[in-house]
Amino acid sequence: MLTKRDEMLECLPDAMTAIGIATPGGPEVLQPETLPLPQPGPGQVLVRVRFAGVNRPDVVQRQGFYPAPPGHSPIPGLEIAGEVVALGEGVSEPAIGTAIAALVSGGGYAQYCIAEADQCLPVPEGLPLEEAAALPETVFTVWHNVFQRAFACEGETLLVHGGTSGIGTMAISLGRLFGVRTIVTCGSPDKCARALELGADHAIDYKASDFVAEVKTITGGKGVQVVLDMVAGTYVQRNIKCLADDGRHVTIAVQGGVRAEINMAEVMRRRIMLTGSTMRSRDNTFKALLAQEIREMVWPLVASGELRPVMDRTFPLIEASAAHERMEAGGHVGKIVLAVS
Amino acid sequence: MLTKRDEMLECLPDAMTAIGIATPGGPEVLQPETLPLPQPGPGQVLVRVRFAGVNRPDVVQRQGFYPAPPGHSPIPGLEIAGEVVALGEGVSEPAIGTAIAALVSGGGYAQYCIAEADQCLPVPEGLPLEEAAALPETVFTVWHNVFQRAFACEGETLLVHGGTSGIGTMAISLGRLFGVRTIVTCGSPDKCARALELGADHAIDYKASDFVAEVKTITGGKGVQVVLDMVAGTYVQRNIKCLADDGRHVTIAVQGGVRAEINMAEVMRRRIMLTGSTMRSRDNTFKALLAQEIREMVWPLVASGELRPVMDRTFPLIEASAAHERMEAGGHVGKIVLAVS
Repeated sequence: MLTKRDEMLECLPDAMTAIGIATPGGPEVLQPETLPLPQPGPGQVLVRVRFAGVNRPDVVQRQGFYPAPPGHSPIPGLEIAGEVVALGEGVSEPAIGTAIAALVSGGGYAQYCIAEADQCLPVPEGLPLEEAAALPETVFTVWHNVFQRAFACEGETLLVHGGTSGIGTMAISLGRLFGVRTIVTCGSPDKCARALELGADHAIDYKASDFVAEVKTITGGKGVQVVLDMVAGTYVQRNIKCLADDGRHVTIAVQGGVRAEINMAEVMRRRIMLTGSTMRSRDNTFKALLAQEIREMVWPLVASGELRPVMDRTFPLIEASAAHERMEAGGHVGKIVLAVS
Repeated sequence: MLTKRDEMLECLPDAMTAIGIATPGGPEVLQPETLPLPQPGPGQVLVRVRFAGVNRPDVVQRQGFYPAPPGHSPIPGLEIAGEVVALGEGVSEPAIGTAIAALVSGGGYAQYCIAEADQCLPVPEGLPLEEAAALPETVFTVWHNVFQRAFACEGETLLVHGGTSGIGTMAISLGRLFGVRTIVTCGSPDKCARALELGADHAIDYKASDFVAEVKTITGGKGVQVVLDMVAGTYVQRNIKCLADDGRHVTIAVQGGVRAEINMAEVMRRRIMLTGSTMRSRDNTFKALLAQEIREMVWPLVASGELRPVMDRTFPLIEASAAHERMEAGGHVGKIVLAVS
């Protein structure tokens, strides 16, 4: 006799289309592959992916610099939205058929993807799946780094580089909703205007002026309490100059190089705190706890419509390479998404 | 009619001997001066100093690199023990005649010194004033930086450079009392032996071996949770190599230079936290809160005799220059103290 679970699995195909990385390189190395359907293990669910978010770490992975952690799918893609179609051992929630958004540790660029049950968030009524897929990576990253790691508080000011990126736009939105003023830097007057429209308190065109001097002026010489840093390299010491005494500096990417020369006397004298994190490598216990906090603190704002991702463009799954080209060209504002099926 | 306070003040001399810094330079610039007695302001007490601790920041101040904060005595000396002889406005505790140890923001190398009433700690019965004077600076510094700033927890391991210094010996003692294992570095086999006698779990002769490799071996490859750094400069990246994932690095001095080159990808990937602080520049509200926590958490261990400073040598006040020479020669183990009267 077939169990209910067996029945459901019987309806699923044996194989799926996914976007693999043939060999590290440019966007063109992203190529469709036919792979067997992944099987959810204990605590996991299988999701029929409708949309998958594209993120900067996917680009770095494609280039060969950010390999999948051991035991995880080598297929890129860190966030998805779709319906639960099979449950692993011990899972009762989310139920089969539930529309969910999930942070995943790889494998999102595919028709089916494994997610940890406790890293799934229900898609509220009225939220298109396309937008649901664009939330997890930036919500998890900004929430953890800005609020948990740098403990940004109501009334404080946050400096974010790349104000119109996926992370930048989410930082602006969460800042606005949680009482944290945002100063962003962008690479053009147009992007500055977009960042201001999205709710940034100040936007600095870093090509036209020195962001350190601008931050000083904006804050009346005091500096900001938190910097969310995606650049590292020579920006770090400049970021420190932007920080108020007791300021916190959190690095989440090293697009400007890994080596930073830091004046430790200044760190000491002004009690600066520097830290950073990556999301993908964290263990499932951490991610489940983070998901729980987001469910309580952030998801009600998604349900009420107060928090929406800023959407750039959606590409079909098989045009993933075009999506990467767009991200690398840097002309996008907000999130790039892949439509899977 | 004279009030009680007037009477007491009448018994005090008009002038006192203090050790001034004639001009920045070597130990010889420390010279006795005759100065008017300081007057306690609101919230302050006047202390007849019996002993004053000598600390590394006094040496740096003498060299001209660590000037007294605005509004504070230019006389060196950051910790004292003695009796309260006059009370400023609004002060009822500690009462006249009470033996106290106090963290002060300068002026300790003198017969009389101002202390904030809420930065005074009572000298428990059985604790010689000489030892009482040797406690505040290292207790406040180690408690704040190791436990509050780097939140060292029971069962964790702390790496401290300069294991036989005043700070190093206090870190060993507090580590032992609060369940934090200590690995120290010292500059000779003799000092390593002394550090082990004092309760360090491991002592590394940094001249004979690479402390990074030694820490790896001692911790089974895992690293330490906290580094208390007094060196900065090129040590910072080496210290980071000694840290476990999620490790915390606190800089309290920059004896090896201020510039540190740091790999931000490592900070990010391993979620390292770097911070630091100076004690003297903190405001009185902070110091009062810290004193309160020390009164509750650490002082009972002083009262019970479980915590004692490690004493090196005591010099008469007028031989302050010899005390500095001894500190700079680096041969001391534990605290150097000045006997005032």
